[in-house]
Amino acid sequence: MSAPNITWHHGLVRPEERESLLGQRGAVIWLTGLSGAGKSTIARHLELLLVQSRCFAYVLDGDNLRHGLNADLGFSTQDRSENIRRVGSVAQLFSDAGVLCITAFISPFREDRAQARALVDEGRFIEVFVDTPLALCEARDPKGLYRRARAGEIAHFTGISSPYEAPENPEVHLHTRDQTPEESARQLLDALGSLRVLPPA
Amino acid sequence: MSAPNITWHHGLVRPEERESLLGQRGAVIWLTGLSGAGKSTIARHLELLLVQSRCFAYVLDGDNLRHGLNADLGFSTQDRSENIRRVGSVAQLFSDAGVLCITAFISPFREDRAQARALVDEGRFIEVFVDTPLALCEARDPKGLYRRARAGEIAHFTGISSPYEAPENPEVHLHTRDQTPEESARQLLDALGSLRVLPPA
Repeated sequence: MSAPNITWHHGLVRPEERESLLGQRGAVIWLTGLSGAGKSTIARHLELLLVQSRCFAYVLDGDNLRHGLNADLGFSTQDRSENIRRVGSVAQLFSDAGVLCITAFISPFREDRAQARALVDEGRFIEVFVDTPLALCEARDPKGLYRRARAGEIAHFTGISSPYEAPENPEVHLHTRDQTPEESARQLLDALGSLRVLPPA
Repeated sequence: MSAPNITWHHGLVRPEERESLLGQRGAVIWLTGLSGAGKSTIARHLELLLVQSRCFAYVLDGDNLRHGLNADLGFSTQDRSENIRRVGSVAQLFSDAGVLCITAFISPFREDRAQARALVDEGRFIEVFVDTPLALCEARDPKGLYRRARAGEIAHFTGISSPYEAPENPEVHLHTRDQTPEESARQLLDALGSLRVLPPA
């Protein structure tokens, strides 16, 4: 349902004032990949590297948001899209506030990711493909979910019973097979510098 | 629906590191009051005052979120509660990130506000009653909504056809009748200092 009785309120703080306060501009750093690919771990290491560089970063984590904002959603295709729609909206708010907002969600569908991208300014949405082969994710199986999905105990499991649509042209492509999460995070940090998402050192 | 396949991910950034980076602790400054009471305007003035004091503040505005995160919700009692539930969850994320998150929502129901309060640490939720008499709100009627509600064109309109449950024990009580929005914002800023929400000057 749309809400007809509303008008947009612009703030009194100019974006330049916010930038000057924080010494940075906001952006969304959107990690996508299979369950067990290492998204959350890489996101947490990147957050730490950024904060240690005096940048203001914050992680929106798939599992954590399932405890709060998205606790009412399940794992059907429709609910997964709504999950990502809400995350995209929240990431947009953080980015608007000037934060480097790192999101760590499987976000398997291209269309959902494209909608999240459309919410922020050109150049402020960095899609990061955390590219870990399915076989490796399944071998790791940190939460035992692949085993349960193979046993038919979990429906709509990405990579097993639900598709993962890999990014076709991500801003950053992390081949994690031969990297530690710390190494992946450092590669991502370097890429953010090249993409001019980070303020000049 | 609850989500059983999840575990909570703690970050690698300690809260003290975040505080040190920002020079402040996060909090939720929750403005509640009738439509037309001046919540958004006071919120915007408070945000400006805080940013000018080099504090990192950000406004979540009722109307604005209706464009994005909550665009799927209407104005039934159930949808209004869901609206406030989501806003509370997002405000908790901003507060966790270290931001002084100012929310400007009618939020007419005590139970909904109590749930938002329960998400953040003791002393980090500041309920602010923007206390403007209904007759004054209706006389202002900046968006013509009271007129339409009286004409029966809008259902469930707070103060007319849906109750407003005033806070019983708000941290801050703003009597706006004899104040400009700037004066209310300044009174609120002073109160935040007294409540030790703001870092020492």
